[in-house]
Amino acid sequence: MKLRESARGRIRLGELGEDRLLDHLLHRVSLGRAVAVGPSDDCAVVETQASRNFLVLKTDCVVEGVHFSPSANALDVGWKAMMRPLSDFAATSAVPQFALITLIAPEQTKVQWVKDLYRGLRQAAKRFEVSIVGGETSSTPGPISISASVVGFVERDRWVSRRDGKVGDDLFVTGQLGGALKQKHLRFIPRIVESRWLTKNFSIHAMMDLSDGLGADLPRLARASKVGFKIEMQNLPLTRGANIGNAISEGEDYELLFAISRRDGNRLEREWQKKFPKLPLTRIGSLSKPSTNNSQLLRGGYVHFQQPN
Amino acid sequence: MKLRESARGRIRLGELGEDRLLDHLLHRVSLGRAVAVGPSDDCAVVETQASRNFLVLKTDCVVEGVHFSPSANALDVGWKAMMRPLSDFAATSAVPQFALITLIAPEQTKVQWVKDLYRGLRQAAKRFEVSIVGGETSSTPGPISISASVVGFVERDRWVSRRDGKVGDDLFVTGQLGGALKQKHLRFIPRIVESRWLTKNFSIHAMMDLSDGLGADLPRLARASKVGFKIEMQNLPLTRGANIGNAISEGEDYELLFAISRRDGNRLEREWQKKFPKLPLTRIGSLSKPSTNNSQLLRGGYVHFQQPN
Repeated sequence: MKLRESARGRIRLGELGEDRLLDHLLHRVSLGRAVAVGPSDDCAVVETQASRNFLVLKTDCVVEGVHFSPSANALDVGWKAMMRPLSDFAATSAVPQFALITLIAPEQTKVQWVKDLYRGLRQAAKRFEVSIVGGETSSTPGPISISASVVGFVERDRWVSRRDGKVGDDLFVTGQLGGALKQKHLRFIPRIVESRWLTKNFSIHAMMDLSDGLGADLPRLARASKVGFKIEMQNLPLTRGANIGNAISEGEDYELLFAISRRDGNRLEREWQKKFPKLPLTRIGSLSKPSTNNSQLLRGGYVHFQQPN
Repeated sequence: MKLRESARGRIRLGELGEDRLLDHLLHRVSLGRAVAVGPSDDCAVVETQASRNFLVLKTDCVVEGVHFSPSANALDVGWKAMMRPLSDFAATSAVPQFALITLIAPEQTKVQWVKDLYRGLRQAAKRFEVSIVGGETSSTPGPISISASVVGFVERDRWVSRRDGKVGDDLFVTGQLGGALKQKHLRFIPRIVESRWLTKNFSIHAMMDLSDGLGADLPRLARASKVGFKIEMQNLPLTRGANIGNAISEGEDYELLFAISRRDGNRLEREWQKKFPKLPLTRIGSLSKPSTNNSQLLRGGYVHFQQPN
């Protein structure tokens, strides 16, 4: 499909066939050596890692009117759609490798918007050397939605879940919390590099990414680890202009929250500053014996499908 | 989440939190031994196959008002949403293993509908021993959509693409074509067993599943293989009540179309009948030197985003 420059902005999805659209959208995807066949066939077929690793899978979606506004920049939307599942890879300390993209969009969607979207998806994928190996498009009478499914690997001895936090562990968060909805949520960078460094050099007991807000996410980690928690509210690292309420309940921070033994935590604080001088790392509290009280303190994280209290 | 029997039908998605919904929907998923952690954590983490195999990835989606009507049985919708990508595994002669499900649905969707949907997804997954290892839900102001992303493997010497068909190859289709929109498209069974038998016993040059109709799909296979084709229209295996036009252009047949050398084709016809006595296998034509004429004959397969001619 060759689109003349002058006509680009006015072409609608409904005027193109799906084959031509996919051909065009995926034309510039550079497939890595690991990819035997990409978007042009029924399935994507790729080389596997040695079987000493675990395979890691994650899917996530963004919906117009829910995760982005109709006026959002398509490039930003594509970036966010790819980076959301990659943030879960950071949480798992896994290396993402392959992505499948599903675009569901009305026929009247401008082709230029869709091209910008895929440019954002490609830019985000490239940042972490992820190959977009396939996908699907469908029309819809409703709003635009984009799903990204990502597959990769993690070494058996570096995999981190939410469920092995111990009573007495220090709790750390990367970066700053709150205020992400203003801008950061569309251009964030998943903490994959930091997470991989962490598991290479330290024993991380439990970890997750903060997508729904500390108030919703920390209780999930504590519940999975069957422990309670204590947070020192005055220590929460706040984005400039944000307050504690924002940091707890807004969500979309995409920072790492993790539990590590106190002894390792002290060493970590020293080494982190040398390795990542521009990214704050903050000890915000600790894991404690199970209790129902603490989770009350942190109510109000954003939870999909739930009405605000 | 325990729902009292009497209240089930009246509960709406908006009244539940996402955590509870996912917990409930995935509660009955029995994870295979290969799954280290499933839907409860940031990513699914699973055992990989030996690295002598290729990894195979496919995603597909169904949208209310496009792929199923608002009055469709939720169980059937779930079945179809899972079986569509599995049909692409059949086309690749690959073994599906793990699935991720994305449900995008309005808050007013009845919980009972969603539970039936997942029952259909689970039934379909179970049929081919696929583990549903994760997923995502989101609200939407628009119609319901369900995406299924599936990961599995294929042995390097059994992988089939669309692109190695040879001039002179026989073309075969399984089953009968046309009329699928009446009923079959919601309850079809991907030809994975047949496809695996084919590649175990024969050299299949090129293969695909018929989802958009022979008229749209065969030209794709021919184009990928850089050949033309000749179809003996009178030989097309028609579903009772369907005509040649239906068989060419309706789509949703989910039968296999494949190319095999003439010599192997003769042996195949004899052995197929013994192995699959209930499923017809029909030689419908052959691959020929490249030509533009043939594809004209088969225009009209259903193509998403394209207006009917």
